[in-house]
Amino acid sequence: MARDKALYHGHPVAAVAATSVRIAEEACKKIAVDYEVLTPVLSLDQALAKDAPILHERMRASGDEPLPEGPTNLASRREMGRGDVAAGFAAADAVVEREFRTPMVHQGYIEPHAVLARTGEDGRAVVYCCTQGPFMVRAFSAKVLGVATDTIKVVPTEIGGGFGGKTTVYLEPLAILLSRKSGRPVKMVMTREEVFRATGPTSGTHIRVKMGAKRDGTLTAAEAVLVYEAGAFKGSPVGAAMMTVFAPYKLANVRIEGWDVVVNKPKVAAYRAPGAPMAALATETVMDELARKLGQDPIDFRLVNAAHEGVQATYGPKFRAIGFVESLRAAKAHPHYRAPLGANQGRGVACGFWFNAGLSSSANVSINEDGSAVVMSGCPDIGGSRASLALMAAEELGIPVEQVRPVVVDTESIGFNDLTGGSRVTFATGMAVIEAARDVVNQLRARAAKTWEVELDAVAWNEGRAVAVNGAEGKHEPLTLRQLAARAAATGGPISGRASLTARGAGPGFATHLCDVEVDRETGAVKVLRYTAVQDDGRAVHPSYVEGQMQGGVAQGIGWALNEEYVYDARGAMENPGFLDYRVPVASDLPMIDTVIVEVPNPMHPYGVRGVGETPIVPPLAAVANAVERAAGVEIRELPISPPKLLALIEGAR
Amino acid sequence: MARDKALYHGHPVAAVAATSVRIAEEACKKIAVDYEVLTPVLSLDQALAKDAPILHERMRASGDEPLPEGPTNLASRREMGRGDVAAGFAAADAVVEREFRTPMVHQGYIEPHAVLARTGEDGRAVVYCCTQGPFMVRAFSAKVLGVATDTIKVVPTEIGGGFGGKTTVYLEPLAILLSRKSGRPVKMVMTREEVFRATGPTSGTHIRVKMGAKRDGTLTAAEAVLVYEAGAFKGSPVGAAMMTVFAPYKLANVRIEGWDVVVNKPKVAAYRAPGAPMAALATETVMDELARKLGQDPIDFRLVNAAHEGVQATYGPKFRAIGFVESLRAAKAHPHYRAPLGANQGRGVACGFWFNAGLSSSANVSINEDGSAVVMSGCPDIGGSRASLALMAAEELGIPVEQVRPVVVDTESIGFNDLTGGSRVTFATGMAVIEAARDVVNQLRARAAKTWEVELDAVAWNEGRAVAVNGAEGKHEPLTLRQLAARAAATGGPISGRASLTARGAGPGFATHLCDVEVDRETGAVKVLRYTAVQDDGRAVHPSYVEGQMQGGVAQGIGWALNEEYVYDARGAMENPGFLDYRVPVASDLPMIDTVIVEVPNPMHPYGVRGVGETPIVPPLAAVANAVERAAGVEIRELPISPPKLLALIEGAR
Repeated sequence: MARDKALYHGHPVAAVAATSVRIAEEACKKIAVDYEVLTPVLSLDQALAKDAPILHERMRASGDEPLPEGPTNLASRREMGRGDVAAGFAAADAVVEREFRTPMVHQGYIEPHAVLARTGEDGRAVVYCCTQGPFMVRAFSAKVLGVATDTIKVVPTEIGGGFGGKTTVYLEPLAILLSRKSGRPVKMVMTREEVFRATGPTSGTHIRVKMGAKRDGTLTAAEAVLVYEAGAFKGSPVGAAMMTVFAPYKLANVRIEGWDVVVNKPKVAAYRAPGAPMAALATETVMDELARKLGQDPIDFRLVNAAHEGVQATYGPKFRAIGFVESLRAAKAHPHYRAPLGANQGRGVACGFWFNAGLSSSANVSINEDGSAVVMSGCPDIGGSRASLALMAAEELGIPVEQVRPVVVDTESIGFNDLTGGSRVTFATGMAVIEAARDVVNQLRARAAKTWEVELDAVAWNEGRAVAVNGAEGKHEPLTLRQLAARAAATGGPISGRASLTARGAGPGFATHLCDVEVDRETGAVKVLRYTAVQDDGRAVHPSYVEGQMQGGVAQGIGWALNEEYVYDARGAMENPGFLDYRVPVASDLPMIDTVIVEVPNPMHPYGVRGVGETPIVPPLAAVANAVERAAGVEIRELPISPPKLLALIEGAR
Repeated sequence: MARDKALYHGHPVAAVAATSVRIAEEACKKIAVDYEVLTPVLSLDQALAKDAPILHERMRASGDEPLPEGPTNLASRREMGRGDVAAGFAAADAVVEREFRTPMVHQGYIEPHAVLARTGEDGRAVVYCCTQGPFMVRAFSAKVLGVATDTIKVVPTEIGGGFGGKTTVYLEPLAILLSRKSGRPVKMVMTREEVFRATGPTSGTHIRVKMGAKRDGTLTAAEAVLVYEAGAFKGSPVGAAMMTVFAPYKLANVRIEGWDVVVNKPKVAAYRAPGAPMAALATETVMDELARKLGQDPIDFRLVNAAHEGVQATYGPKFRAIGFVESLRAAKAHPHYRAPLGANQGRGVACGFWFNAGLSSSANVSINEDGSAVVMSGCPDIGGSRASLALMAAEELGIPVEQVRPVVVDTESIGFNDLTGGSRVTFATGMAVIEAARDVVNQLRARAAKTWEVELDAVAWNEGRAVAVNGAEGKHEPLTLRQLAARAAATGGPISGRASLTARGAGPGFATHLCDVEVDRETGAVKVLRYTAVQDDGRAVHPSYVEGQMQGGVAQGIGWALNEEYVYDARGAMENPGFLDYRVPVASDLPMIDTVIVEVPNPMHPYGVRGVGETPIVPPLAAVANAVERAAGVEIRELPISPPKLLALIEGAR
């Protein structure tokens, strides 16, 4: 917690446990903190200004030269790139360069952070909390408290939204410590205000992007400078922003610079495709202006430059099979793209990319005595992953999905799991479930072989039944899973399978979004008329959950584009820490968001699965901005495109 | 629940849920039940008398002829045996025949039955309860309620004693149903009175045993008639009694008859070595009298006849390596056997046998990122099994046991497990843990082989480290489990192992007990002066828990011998349903119970483990009775040997 300085409004300084909230509040009043009010650093400009107040006197900038000497708020500066950017721009027939600013925004999960910790007399703690990563809570809490990992057990509760924001610890170590000191269970629940002020939103940014293209549409060069707020401690997602900013396009000449800057705001946490949406806002707005300058259809222009299998990504590796081109073609073919537009209406196109992650997963599959199955995983379900895991197990076992019960268990009931994040669970935990189910199927075949007194390879598994093959055809009646389960005790014991793996080859996700808006030129209000999200989902195991992910990402992206922002007063206090003043979209703000699932199977997954949860939030900032630009005839350089800001732009253009 | 008849005092007729106990009590008062009071059947003699009231009009006796025709309280009658018993008795130099009666007694676990059930809107129920078998609770509740097994999840809570009594369901289906009807979580906790009146104690019995021996001590024949109370529904442990009654001895000519009889008392449940202690009371008291008649030392007499490897047990199979002879020799060599006795003091010797069970178990072992391990099982720990499972895993992994965390998980977090009972967990679940740990070790070896780029067989696992062998010696520094765990994500993912099996070859347990008592001839009170329990424990994985099992069994057996009994009034109401009137031994009633662990490894278990939890309750009834007979010069034919009964015997002998 805060030591010499409280570094942001909301930085905790002490924790109090009591038998009632009222007593705790009285106790808090008795803690006298003598604050000396310092000048806060609330923006990137303030942080990087000469003679700026310094957050951490001992912090020095790291990374690639040139770097400032001495105390600074620049935590790091890094460069990457390839080719000859100057030559590229020289060869261009059109060049566009723009600067953008986006505010700090919050994930806005509906359920606040909550924890219940109980420490026993043996020093062991059981922690119930809503988290994306129970093993992460265990490891982080153990580290913070200086205890062994296995003295803490974490039971993940059903989660009311996370979006990346529940991938770290805030309350958990405090609750464990208070419970240890008091000898009682300790419950802590944040208020909404505390969620806004004391948990991790995502970075405010300042981004400059310059791109050049030939008359035929071919991109010749691209350059980006990405400056990201880390909050009060270093570590923004600028690295991911650098890797994603130009990832959708074939580019020989590229130069990218990324700055990580500390400011007196909460330390940022992950938020769905961390760092990518703001970078895509810049790239996709510039791409749109380039298309206009070259007189090209925005989708055709992107098709000329779209990455595909075999292309070396701007961030390094060669793409395997990806579905970017397919998403562009599907968007172009969609009726939305031909729908007529009226006065003050405009259509925006934007694309997005996200890596998706693999990481480590464990899964167990066990067969109940009645032939039904349980699928156990250690990854909390934040977007329907239980359903997709059950479907994959049902597919392997050859039984109806209704007979498969998927559950998320605690840290002492399954092997290690990385957290739920990076759109990785259906992909990586899915691979583990498939492997565990195949382990079960092999055991079922062995039981049938034993029963029939044949070799294992004379038994095939077919639609939930062991069938005699390889010369044994017709000699034995097939045995169903239910029959084999009923006889399990007599044929060698219960049947269960397990798998633990680090999944390689998470397939990158690409999306193309279409957005129609109408601008009210009197008020500056923007109404989203139509929205279509097209995305390569590899293989949509549970299509309606996949659509839900796409729709959810779009909803969050529209809020980010139009209304959401952290507002600070001059003294550094957040002025809008509640859902009345921090305006996330509600149902009446949004049209039905149409979705098109494109399926280009990921060759690295047995079923072709690729992550789908994060990509959908990458295009909307740009899709909305491009639509507003076309509807209002203005140039968007700052989010949110809220009524007063847009009205000022419209009036400025008059 | 009770339908046309309430069959015993405590037979439930209705269940009520309310927001407070008081409201529930008011609601119960509004349920009008019109009872017609029938004549109860409270003893075996009453049940089998001509014109006895019949509990179940439609029940007919089953089993071996002769059987009564028409309605009867005899549920079954069975016979087993071999050889020529009449010729055996004719060849005997001494024959003893005695009859015994033992009362219904309760396991007396300190924690009453308790359950919390929560049924969701999806119809799925989560049940928290203290049970020996969470998978059994799931299966039985599903069957009673007519729902699919996988709609119920059972979370076993820490158990405050079971001893066999928590191997069935009483409250669980009711709580699930009430929760489903009310849409609320429902908690039910029995009072002590309800535990006595409405849960399953063990059978009252009437046993006749006749045995004959030659002058040299060789047994020539044995005969037993075992009549056991089932309680209100058929199914006493008389079958196990038949199999155990003469099991310790080599006998060519044997005839055993077993009767299962219903009475108006609670249906019996399992109680530690079900059925065996009362049978052993009869056999071992008769053996003692035979030894006296033949002028032989009671241990020497048993040694002449003791079963050993290769002997065909009276219940069928040939014994593998067993430690009965070893336990007798250790008892004879013990200082206790030579300790001087004073006036009114006597020493009893008695032996006991129990099969021990195998059944089905699943276990998982997973490695934490810091190299510590978790051992997961689905068998509630009733006697220290977690510690022994952790020790076995530590042994296989080659790490200190402090780095192994053993946990009992719920029915959705592990493969199927039979219940904790039959002294099976350290044996059978232990086998599964060893197999799962070996699965882990093989993965650890594979990770090291991958790291070193050598074949798997060039890596051995030695004291918690991968060591290069088979030509690779000295070429690679050993890798510790901690090092391999830290690199797990990079070398293939988390490391976890699993095993599910039906364990064969549970090693039978044999014990020899020595008991010294002093009798107060004025009051009939018996004081236990010394007690030594000698037992073949196969391999004592956690010696002090093994000793605890031996001491606990003896304590319960002494209570059974001296004081415990269900007392009914003439109308069938239990008169002593509380620990003030149902007198279990307290610490001041008992001497320090000395234990001698004999280790004859069970050849069917990798470590030689055999079950240890039930055998210790088999000899004490007879050991105490034999000691009292020698101290008081009376013949014990009935338990408990409570002061008024013993005083009457002493006065009768005068």
